[in-house]
Amino acid sequence: MKPAEAAGIDVLWTPSEIDAVRLEGRPAAVIDVVRATTTILVALEAGAREVVPAASEEEARRIAAGEEDTLLCGERGGRRIRGFDLGNSPGEYTPDRVGGRRLAFRTSNGTGAIRAAAGAGWVGLASFRNLDAMARRLRREEGAPILLCAGRDGRMGWDDVLCAGMLVERLLPDGAERGALRDGARAALELCAAAGSPDAALLEATDAGAAVARIGLGADLEVCADVNASERVPVLVEGRLVLDHGGDHGD
Amino acid sequence: MKPAEAAGIDVLWTPSEIDAVRLEGRPAAVIDVVRATTTILVALEAGAREVVPAASEEEARRIAAGEEDTLLCGERGGRRIRGFDLGNSPGEYTPDRVGGRRLAFRTSNGTGAIRAAAGAGWVGLASFRNLDAMARRLRREEGAPILLCAGRDGRMGWDDVLCAGMLVERLLPDGAERGALRDGARAALELCAAAGSPDAALLEATDAGAAVARIGLGADLEVCADVNASERVPVLVEGRLVLDHGGDHGD
Repeated sequence: MKPAEAAGIDVLWTPSEIDAVRLEGRPAAVIDVVRATTTILVALEAGAREVVPAASEEEARRIAAGEEDTLLCGERGGRRIRGFDLGNSPGEYTPDRVGGRRLAFRTSNGTGAIRAAAGAGWVGLASFRNLDAMARRLRREEGAPILLCAGRDGRMGWDDVLCAGMLVERLLPDGAERGALRDGARAALELCAAAGSPDAALLEATDAGAAVARIGLGADLEVCADVNASERVPVLVEGRLVLDHGGDHGD
Repeated sequence: MKPAEAAGIDVLWTPSEIDAVRLEGRPAAVIDVVRATTTILVALEAGAREVVPAASEEEARRIAAGEEDTLLCGERGGRRIRGFDLGNSPGEYTPDRVGGRRLAFRTSNGTGAIRAAAGAGWVGLASFRNLDAMARRLRREEGAPILLCAGRDGRMGWDDVLCAGMLVERLLPDGAERGALRDGARAALELCAAAGSPDAALLEATDAGAAVARIGLGADLEVCADVNASERVPVLVEGRLVLDHGGDHGD
């Protein structure tokens, strides 16, 4: 990203906004803090070989069919899908369970958003856990970044927009004219300035976090709220997510 | 609205979110500050008999066909549509031009959003000009309000979300627990708290306002920013918009 492109950052508040922007030649960060982009990062850091995002349960089953080393992963209504090996809680993704394995992954919002972004010039996954790493990575890519919030059932999700705002904050050069930002990026930045630093309690007050807590998985939110716990960025390469470095080299 | 329903207010940041909520039995306020819901209010106050919102140019032409007293109104790319009688600038809607007339109205975002809301139990048009009147009217209706932001080309529009936030502010009972609000309403409320009072300069800094100013219609923004200039609410009755009182009676 050239400094002048910072004002062109687009924050898409829901995946439906993707039809209104040009994806080609621009880097896109997909954000589903609670929980898909958090959990996929944790899974890859635990040693999963690759994660294949699926648009549906059926597609996840097809991806795994006949592949002995592939685990079926994901949720419906927040809970592990019947017959799947793992759900969408980051704590399930331990080295002994996923090390060296391929994961077919289906979640209600995140994996569909990743698939929708596939036409971008570069696609990575962002969460609070890899904010700084993602900002460094986006700065290295050509073109004005697109920050795609997965949201929840087609609606905006506070957690994702906060994360987008924190990325905008990191991507804007010092002293940049915030008034030059488009509405979506500017509003995300303002929300994040008002919210303060994310923690599990803040996430539990969001629609997505409250839903996770309601089904007894509130402990997941601690993992989701752990800002900069990771230096790595999951990137989409030919339909599969693998770990990239967070731009900590080559700068 | 019963006081307990205040926490159930839904702010839809773009029309695409409408698929995720129940409309039946709930009142909906459609918001397109720059400029459709402002201009339609001004047109009705100038004496237009009714405004028929059209989903397309072709539909507007069909609505007007053979109806001598019907004016063709609306814009494409912000400008009056070729062959139409009037554009989308509130200043065009004077009593001598529109008094007693029926208006077939097509705009790029607002009229489609109005049509999309038609399944709600009650539909009215909100703008900065009738904030207090709309809040009073919504309080009289049954059910938790839906505030539908028209946005711009499928993306969120800062102007509309600010207006929604100002409505949420007015609808929440004193001392209500803001944490009980859903993400969309809570985020709109926070943005509006950060923004301060709207004026033409604030609108010109939004994507929609900047686009209007770019084509030389910046003076429209003064009309759009005039908070509580009106006590009236346009309401949708069998596909036509007519003036209602703003709840200043019967309370």
